[in-house]
Amino acid sequence: MEAGPPGSSRPTELGPCLSGQRGADQAASASLQSAARAQLGRHPLAVAAVLPAGGCGERMGVPTPKQFCPILERPLISYTLQALERVFWIKDIVVVVTGENMEVMKSIIQKYQHKRISLVEAGVTRHRSIFNGLKALAEDQLNCKLSKPEIVIIHDAVRPFVEEDILLKVVTAAKEHGCSDYDLEFGTECLQLALKYCCTKAKLVEGSPDLWKVTYKRDLYAAESIVKERISQEVCVITDTKEDNKHVSHLLEEVLKSELNHVKVTSEALCHAGRDLQQIILDQCYNFVCVNVMTSDLQETQKLLSILEESHLSILYPVVVVSVHFLDFKLVPPSQKMENLMQIREFAKEVKKRNIWLCGLLISYPQDEQKLQESLRQGAIIIASLIKERNSGLVGQLLIA
Amino acid sequence: MEAGPPGSSRPTELGPCLSGQRGADQAASASLQSAARAQLGRHPLAVAAVLPAGGCGERMGVPTPKQFCPILERPLISYTLQALERVFWIKDIVVVVTGENMEVMKSIIQKYQHKRISLVEAGVTRHRSIFNGLKALAEDQLNCKLSKPEIVIIHDAVRPFVEEDILLKVVTAAKEHGCSDYDLEFGTECLQLALKYCCTKAKLVEGSPDLWKVTYKRDLYAAESIVKERISQEVCVITDTKEDNKHVSHLLEEVLKSELNHVKVTSEALCHAGRDLQQIILDQCYNFVCVNVMTSDLQETQKLLSILEESHLSILYPVVVVSVHFLDFKLVPPSQKMENLMQIREFAKEVKKRNIWLCGLLISYPQDEQKLQESLRQGAIIIASLIKERNSGLVGQLLIA
Repeated sequence: MEAGPPGSSRPTELGPCLSGQRGADQAASASLQSAARAQLGRHPLAVAAVLPAGGCGERMGVPTPKQFCPILERPLISYTLQALERVFWIKDIVVVVTGENMEVMKSIIQKYQHKRISLVEAGVTRHRSIFNGLKALAEDQLNCKLSKPEIVIIHDAVRPFVEEDILLKVVTAAKEHGCSDYDLEFGTECLQLALKYCCTKAKLVEGSPDLWKVTYKRDLYAAESIVKERISQEVCVITDTKEDNKHVSHLLEEVLKSELNHVKVTSEALCHAGRDLQQIILDQCYNFVCVNVMTSDLQETQKLLSILEESHLSILYPVVVVSVHFLDFKLVPPSQKMENLMQIREFAKEVKKRNIWLCGLLISYPQDEQKLQESLRQGAIIIASLIKERNSGLVGQLLIA
Repeated sequence: MEAGPPGSSRPTELGPCLSGQRGADQAASASLQSAARAQLGRHPLAVAAVLPAGGCGERMGVPTPKQFCPILERPLISYTLQALERVFWIKDIVVVVTGENMEVMKSIIQKYQHKRISLVEAGVTRHRSIFNGLKALAEDQLNCKLSKPEIVIIHDAVRPFVEEDILLKVVTAAKEHGCSDYDLEFGTECLQLALKYCCTKAKLVEGSPDLWKVTYKRDLYAAESIVKERISQEVCVITDTKEDNKHVSHLLEEVLKSELNHVKVTSEALCHAGRDLQQIILDQCYNFVCVNVMTSDLQETQKLLSILEESHLSILYPVVVVSVHFLDFKLVPPSQKMENLMQIREFAKEVKKRNIWLCGLLISYPQDEQKLQESLRQGAIIIASLIKERNSGLVGQLLIA
């Protein structure tokens, strides 16, 4: 990551971040950062970001340039844009892409509704590309949309997990250390160049292990697993207000809590005009379990699906919905109830288009308390696996616990 | 990775491998290696390996030491042992573990049937541990089981994807460059030590990107994805010899080939006394699709399961078996056939104990050719997803395409 004022079009190299902080260090640093952030608020600096994204990803061993490789069906660069967009004090984000990828990039910005983005064409080297991005900011050539920034963060398009605190460190360091000349034409490693030409003004900012660069195919795998883990941190159990149903829902919640270690399990009723559910959606919960007791009716699930569709929650991440049906398999063999539940396949096909991944789950509801605990545990294992693995091939399936 | 004769108990540092080789380079290197390997065959060197595995994995952010973290339910170190065992010219493998992990390590060796392994207790530092391993080889103190080696490869327990060609390079380099003193007590980075104390005799051997070290949690994710990819390279479609069934199986094979890009799809009949199937098992195919046409009978699947259980194929990796049933949903609604297929849950529970992961899959078999193609494609997507994602939570489920 590099930063520098664009007037000179020559950023100071701030280096890839090397290692994380822990314990007391982290606390001290967090308090420093919050002070710095407050200061940034009082004397607002005009900050912009330039993302060079013209690479061809040859080390990856895949034909798609790595910034466009899909992570849970969404291109990697969209995650990086999302990370920068979240930071309110970054006013403009300039993405530098090759001419041939310009249209792909436009469609990504439109599909995932990215804001504050401008596109600039890449140069023949990475440094020329950065230069083009800086020039666009300095010259305000993009139809006056861009405001001239005092500091520009230059961030790899293939480091998707950048956090605000690191960006703040970079900006603070850039403010203190200024910037300097560097070799646009022949440069390879920015830090080396910065040290060679301007060693007094370059500063290495320490980063976190999460800031690593997606380079090899294994990094794509790792990135996908990290994203899956992040969006599996909360599950909302939806239930109606009947006492019986609340009891079973509560039992399922308890088992889910122990099965999904460290995962927040909340519960909500649909009938409260969905007010609290709206808050849960706003808080970005991407996993919903709709509990139905002794019925294979899908009305409640359909209501939930409508609310989710309207919310646009699923623009960035696939939302998993599990329609759970507690049935007494002794009274009614599951196969007899399945006819009705088969409708779930059609619903699933429909909502999949909007990135909502629906599955059905029958859980045995025996009278015996011990057997009930066992079937709840089986159900929780399946729900945990649907949420954590987020396997699109299983959309529309009806599973049995 | 480091190597050196154990007599002196002081290995030469050969450094972590830095980057891969490509194209012509790779071809030239492969031919050199095959020559070197031939030479190693003619003048057999006594080679042993020492695996320091005493670390506590604090950077990983998980309570289990990283060498014991599970990858597809098997500890990481077992993958590393497997990689070294495959190399026939490594005669002995000494694993150095802390006293408290000695029993865990013994049970891993027993469960995964590792051969040529001896255990030695770790010292207070990594270098002391390596020293203990070398001493054991030099002094032959382990009840004369070990043969005194001329060259010892020292390999991190948390680099599971080491290949024979790299090991060969290390041994060849060690033979040419000899070895030298190094600081056992205070050393941290082996290469730095080697360069400091013996710069003329240290040699950095270039490795491949696959030789990276599992350090962070994201590396565990990546390792699991790499393992999943490796064992998904071949699918065997099992069918009986009736003409009708062969036709449908063939169609499914074709669709699987296009859905599972780059995956080898073979087909086999069970009735040939399983001779060719035995060869496929010996060649380490970990994925089987048992095709049944117009029947919900599970006999063929049971036969296949028995063969697989006897083969011990599933000791190292979970074997996925999909029992596919083609049924005309118009003639017989799937729910009516399900009663019989529900047995699959019991079979699945049974064979899961032996690491065989069984699922059922109903594929619609309509008369209409175009509709058949569509349901085959749906079926192939589900099979591909079961094989690639290898999701243990779905064992025993009956899916519908």
